[in-house]
Amino acid sequence: MLQLYFSPMACSLASRIALMEAGVDARYHQVHLSTKTVVDADSDFRGISSKGAVPVLVLENGERLTECAAVLQYIADLNPERGLAPRPGDADRYRLQEWLSFIGAEIHKAFLFPTFWYKDDGSLAKPRARIAQTLSVPSAHLADREFLIGHSFTVADAYLTWALLLLRTAGVDIAQWPSLSAFSERMQKRPAVREAIATEMALRKMVATA
Amino acid sequence: MLQLYFSPMACSLASRIALMEAGVDARYHQVHLSTKTVVDADSDFRGISSKGAVPVLVLENGERLTECAAVLQYIADLNPERGLAPRPGDADRYRLQEWLSFIGAEIHKAFLFPTFWYKDDGSLAKPRARIAQTLSVPSAHLADREFLIGHSFTVADAYLTWALLLLRTAGVDIAQWPSLSAFSERMQKRPAVREAIATEMALRKMVATA
Repeated sequence: MLQLYFSPMACSLASRIALMEAGVDARYHQVHLSTKTVVDADSDFRGISSKGAVPVLVLENGERLTECAAVLQYIADLNPERGLAPRPGDADRYRLQEWLSFIGAEIHKAFLFPTFWYKDDGSLAKPRARIAQTLSVPSAHLADREFLIGHSFTVADAYLTWALLLLRTAGVDIAQWPSLSAFSERMQKRPAVREAIATEMALRKMVATA
Repeated sequence: MLQLYFSPMACSLASRIALMEAGVDARYHQVHLSTKTVVDADSDFRGISSKGAVPVLVLENGERLTECAAVLQYIADLNPERGLAPRPGDADRYRLQEWLSFIGAEIHKAFLFPTFWYKDDGSLAKPRARIAQTLSVPSAHLADREFLIGHSFTVADAYLTWALLLLRTAGVDIAQWPSLSAFSERMQKRPAVREAIATEMALRKMVATA
C-alpha cells in the first residue's frame, strides 16, 4: 500500500485530495514540521526524506517521491480513468505541468512559504506586494472556466484548492477575486475535497491543543 | 517554427539549451524584463504573456506555453530519441518532474528570484540563510552520479546548469559543494550548453553596454 507523509493543512493536503479523488487507499503518517518528527513513530522525519518537507509518497517498491508536482502526477496516473490528469503525451498534459509549476513556485514558494516560515516584516513586504499580480493570473483564467484544465477536475485543481485555503489563513482576502472564491466554494462541494479538508482540520486542532 | 521569448541568462537559458540539445530550430525573441519590452518588435511583452516572465514558448499552433517545467518537458518530448526526458509513463519521468520542481521552487523561486529582484537586506536574509541546506540536496545526489536522472543528459540537467551559473552571479561560491562545481564544469563541456551560454553572455554584454 502507498504511504503518504503529510502535515495537517500543509501542501500535502493536495496529495490527500488526489488520492481520495483517485479512489486509491494509502497509509497516512503525520509529520510535525517544526521538529521534523514522524508523529506515529516518534522518529526523525529526515530519515524518510533529507529535504524534511512534505509530501513524501512511499511507492509500492519502497522508493520515495517528493515535490507536489511529481507526487500529484504520479497519483493521477495510478487511475487514469478518473481523469485527474490529461494522459501523458496529450497537449493538455503540458498545461497541467504549467499550472502545477505556477502554483508551486509563484503562490506556494514565493508567497505562502515566506508568510508561514519567516516572521519579520522585512522578509514579508516584497512577497506581500507581489501576491495580487500573481493571483490575477488564475483569476483571469477561471473567469469563464469551471476547472484549470479542460472540463473536469485535475490534480492542478486540488493544488489550487489548497493554496486558496492557505491564502485565507495568510491574511489574503480572496473575495477580491470573485472567480477564485467561486472556484474555492465549488471545489469544496466535492465530497473527496470536503472530507480531506475536514480530516486535516481536525488533526490540526488536535496539534494546536496538544 | 517554434518561437522562444527569452532574456539573456534568465531561466529561459535552460530552454535554449534544451532546444539545441534536441536539435530543434526556433526563432528567438529577446525580452527586456524590467521594462517588459520585446526588443526586436519594441512591443509590450505583456501582450505575449500576462505573466510578464520568460520563458514563453510559442508552439506551432500559435498557443503559448510558460513555466520552465512545462516548456522543458515539451521540448524534450519533441525529439524523444535524444533522451532529454524519460518517456512519459516511465518511473523516471516522475524523478524528472521532482527535480524540475525542486530546482524551480527551492533554488530559483526561493533564492535566485529574491536575490535578483529584491534589493534590501531585510528581504534577502532568510533566503540567504536557507540556500546551503537547499544545495545540500543536489550536492549529495550528484556525489556519485554524472547526471540528475539515469545515465544521460536530461532537461533537468539543463535547468540545474543554469541555476548553478546564476548562483555564482548571486554571490554563492559553489566550490563549497565539489560535486556541484564538478557537475557545472562537466555540463559546460557539452557543445550545445557551451554555445547556448556564449550566445546569451554576448547578448547580455550588449544590454549592459547599451
